[in-house]
Amino acid sequence: MSVALPEPLKSVLDDRTVVTLATIQPDGSPQVTPVWVLRDGDDLLISTTVDRRKEKNLRRDPRATVSVLPDGDPYSYAEIRGTVTLTTDGAGELIDALSRKYTGQSYADFNPASALDDPRVVVRVTPVRVNGQGIV
Amino acid sequence: MSVALPEPLKSVLDDRTVVTLATIQPDGSPQVTPVWVLRDGDDLLISTTVDRRKEKNLRRDPRATVSVLPDGDPYSYAEIRGTVTLTTDGAGELIDALSRKYTGQSYADFNPASALDDPRVVVRVTPVRVNGQGIV
Repeated sequence: MSVALPEPLKSVLDDRTVVTLATIQPDGSPQVTPVWVLRDGDDLLISTTVDRRKEKNLRRDPRATVSVLPDGDPYSYAEIRGTVTLTTDGAGELIDALSRKYTGQSYADFNPASALDDPRVVVRVTPVRVNGQGIV
Repeated sequence: MSVALPEPLKSVLDDRTVVTLATIQPDGSPQVTPVWVLRDGDDLLISTTVDRRKEKNLRRDPRATVSVLPDGDPYSYAEIRGTVTLTTDGAGELIDALSRKYTGQSYADFNPASALDDPRVVVRVTPVRVNGQGIV
């Protein structure tokens, strides 16, 4: 059911590439936001908070698409369609790991206002199909 | 019904920023691909070909979302939700204008194999909602 990620795509994900996460709105239209991503084998780990739009969308419909455009390489891309599982387990550790990857700082240092955020959620995307060119 | 684009977002669109276009698959899941974009006032013009996946999706459901991540500015983004109209009128001129904007070359010079492509289609996205930060 799940598929493996090609090695060049893994490298781009392991760089500090900001990716976009598409979810499905209640009315069926696409919702798209930029997100940090951490790779766990072939799965992608993304952080959000309880009751944020994308979390609500994914709780209702677990199908998500992650789009990857490598920085400085406008002719390569990947579209990763996947199925999502949500959990609060390890959610604090994940946002901290993401912050250290993308900013070099703990999340508390990078975004002090986050102390007031709703509880964090781990979005685990298991790829079921990968399309693209150049890096797939 | 339609909304105006904020000026900073217009500037990013007028740069050679590759954006992503999300459409809705027949099964309701999101399909996302990177595209060139030309701004026409508050509308976005995107090129595809007849019977390509995204063209079929938009013919069935005209709701589309364009995601904009400015190059080199990972903390700004825009999500433009819009309604699409499709036409073949001016489709050859559009792909040529897009190619000149993004590559500095005519499309025939940039991609000689395109002579064998299916007919081109103009995807006109009229924004109905704009979200984001930094550039909106």
